[in-house]
Amino acid sequence: MAAQKNEKMEAIVSLTKRRGFIYQGSDVYGGLSGTWDYGPLGVALKRNIMQLWWKLFVDSRDDMYGVDAAILMNQKVWQASGHVDTFVDPLCEDTVNKRRYRTDHILKDNGIDPTGMTMQQMDVAIQEHGVKSPDGNPLSESRTFNMMFTTHVGPVADEKSVSYLRPETAQGIFTNYKNVVDSFYPDLPFGLAQQGKAFRNEISPRDFIFRTREFEQMEIEYFVHPDKGQESFESLLADIHSFLDLLGLPKEAVHELEVPAEDRAHYSKRTIDIEYDFPIGREELLGLAYRTDFDLSNIQRVSGKNMEYNVKGTNEKFVPHVIEPSFGVERALMAVISAAYTEDEVNGEKRIFLKFPEHLAPVKYAISPLLKNKPELVEKAREVYAILKKKHGNVMWDDNGNIGKRYRRQDEIGTPYCVVVDFDSLEDGTVTIRDRDTTEQKRISIDDL
Amino acid sequence: MAAQKNEKMEAIVSLTKRRGFIYQGSDVYGGLSGTWDYGPLGVALKRNIMQLWWKLFVDSRDDMYGVDAAILMNQKVWQASGHVDTFVDPLCEDTVNKRRYRTDHILKDNGIDPTGMTMQQMDVAIQEHGVKSPDGNPLSESRTFNMMFTTHVGPVADEKSVSYLRPETAQGIFTNYKNVVDSFYPDLPFGLAQQGKAFRNEISPRDFIFRTREFEQMEIEYFVHPDKGQESFESLLADIHSFLDLLGLPKEAVHELEVPAEDRAHYSKRTIDIEYDFPIGREELLGLAYRTDFDLSNIQRVSGKNMEYNVKGTNEKFVPHVIEPSFGVERALMAVISAAYTEDEVNGEKRIFLKFPEHLAPVKYAISPLLKNKPELVEKAREVYAILKKKHGNVMWDDNGNIGKRYRRQDEIGTPYCVVVDFDSLEDGTVTIRDRDTTEQKRISIDDL
Repeated sequence: MAAQKNEKMEAIVSLTKRRGFIYQGSDVYGGLSGTWDYGPLGVALKRNIMQLWWKLFVDSRDDMYGVDAAILMNQKVWQASGHVDTFVDPLCEDTVNKRRYRTDHILKDNGIDPTGMTMQQMDVAIQEHGVKSPDGNPLSESRTFNMMFTTHVGPVADEKSVSYLRPETAQGIFTNYKNVVDSFYPDLPFGLAQQGKAFRNEISPRDFIFRTREFEQMEIEYFVHPDKGQESFESLLADIHSFLDLLGLPKEAVHELEVPAEDRAHYSKRTIDIEYDFPIGREELLGLAYRTDFDLSNIQRVSGKNMEYNVKGTNEKFVPHVIEPSFGVERALMAVISAAYTEDEVNGEKRIFLKFPEHLAPVKYAISPLLKNKPELVEKAREVYAILKKKHGNVMWDDNGNIGKRYRRQDEIGTPYCVVVDFDSLEDGTVTIRDRDTTEQKRISIDDL
Repeated sequence: MAAQKNEKMEAIVSLTKRRGFIYQGSDVYGGLSGTWDYGPLGVALKRNIMQLWWKLFVDSRDDMYGVDAAILMNQKVWQASGHVDTFVDPLCEDTVNKRRYRTDHILKDNGIDPTGMTMQQMDVAIQEHGVKSPDGNPLSESRTFNMMFTTHVGPVADEKSVSYLRPETAQGIFTNYKNVVDSFYPDLPFGLAQQGKAFRNEISPRDFIFRTREFEQMEIEYFVHPDKGQESFESLLADIHSFLDLLGLPKEAVHELEVPAEDRAHYSKRTIDIEYDFPIGREELLGLAYRTDFDLSNIQRVSGKNMEYNVKGTNEKFVPHVIEPSFGVERALMAVISAAYTEDEVNGEKRIFLKFPEHLAPVKYAISPLLKNKPELVEKAREVYAILKKKHGNVMWDDNGNIGKRYRRQDEIGTPYCVVVDFDSLEDGTVTIRDRDTTEQKRISIDDL
């Protein structure tokens, strides 16, 4: 089963590169580990996912406000949030060739579950089980490694000028809570939503776009009255499932993991990880966390500014509680592609196609003349193309190779409909439209497209 | 005139903060110089500008392909492009308090034009004119300062692990040229387009969002046959002007500066800077540069990979030439807000409003009940709100204060239409609709909204 799963993952990596979805970052120079670049179809798919999210969680709601904070922030943000001290991974070293590894990954790769272990317990486990490095050498004791990328802002590189590439977008929301309340004074509950890049200096990035050093997040901090947290938690959980449905993820591959108290952050009243059956196994797709007043209280303490919310028309004041739905764009993208990837057989030949939901497909219609060397067919097909392009935008002209090859290519990029203009089209104004999923073809009038 | 201009700039900075467009980055912790955060209305306006650009330059065209490269790239990218060696600013120091300044800015602030001066010539000018630091102290000789932010990727911080926050999105396009050609083999001319963050460690960020340390670019590299460069240059220039028209920028405030040969990069055959009359003066809004084969040839030399394009069905091979239209989102945003900012007088009172083009306005309709304590008015207004929200998305409920205050607030955020539901609405199904620019009100049927 593991072998079969890896085969699917490899097939996806290969298809997405070949067809212009996803390339290794800095590919032409031999790459930069943990970074990925998006080609024309990858960009289109990613934009469709991100815009769907924004429409669902921001534009169509009355209780959500968008923000967009800078990636570089005052270092106090990460001191207050605890990231400077505690955003660390355990790191051990091959004592011979000095290669470094995440201790928890080394354990997992050796069939030992590191969940809940302290760093010391991991080191003990390595000793007890005689775990070696992937090159067969002894491993050093672990030390902590902060996963934030460090840089310096301004002309002097010293302690004062240290800044970090944000490891999450969430803090860019919390630091703007007061600004938004001052500008809009929204009633509780209300949410601030943000999409943007985040960075983690992963020691061992892996599993394609699942664990990368640079990624895109879609996060909401939903501010609630301290008595109403559970209610909003439930309603946001339902909204998350609606979004996952729209991504075309099969319900049976989506799992809620209620994180037990001992595994939650100390401030969290409740956390649900939404896991998905990726080709690499069941892994976290997104999280929903009840963070209480932890973040705003930290900001209040360190900045000295009052973060209390005053309920309109009353004297009631408190630091609001927060529910945080946190999505990773690349993980959503990987789930969408994994769910869409399908192999079947057509006329005795193996076929690969991506059965994206229509509203996510990078290309909705591909338009072809039956023969590219017949000017009258090309002219008519160009007309049809122009009409659909103007109407839908995401329409592709495709006259390369014979019709069979075109279908094959459009199947691989997940185009729901291929439209072919033939000699009958010139006579009666109809075209052939071919359905990606059933491969069925039927004739319809150009006007009905 | 200068004072008046600064007044307008200050009024814009104040309005955009108060109304939830733009806040200082890391505001709650005293800020981080050169960074800005976008509030709900700023995000909406920025998204509208960026989506308009994408629609115009990518989705509606047959010759454009989107890409989205990682911000962190292999350091060879910036060695090959020349940024490691030459992306520098001249930096001088107050010899008493050790504060550092950009030498060219110090000269400009003292009425001396540094255009075309070498660093040595700037130092001579400082001596000759007796220029002092803003604190009145002598200035040191200048040295060069690289404007790229530096970080380290992976667990070891050494020369090999150095990476940079990209100072432009362009190189993320060039490095994907071959990937896209391999996936799609488009006919020449074709363009690759990207939107994304870029970072420059400016010594003295200033002028609101005009010169910042973190900003968003929209860039196209348009690949052409070496004989056809001028033609594509002209046609892209026309496309740029169409975009600026759609931003609502008055034609008389937009200027083409044909950069003379001696001021162009050595590889550039032609460069036009599009300048705009900002409140801070006439400054660069965007650039259009004919970069010849400079970038692809560098990549070919350093990577050893062939960057030649083979014209389909022929033996003709060459490294394509490139035309680069390069837009800054924040500068476009600042131009849009500056162009929209208007003061007039209504009934003897001063009024401020933002006359955004309708397709860019963050809020298109504001819906109010005439009186918020009349449940039947509120109910009817909520109905109207729900209809318009579903249809347009960018619709705001506004029942704070009296109608006059609501109009004032909506004027300041640039809402084209305010809709008021009153007692007549309950009788005859009409509402009052008020025009932002003329302040005229008329009654129309709810169905006609």
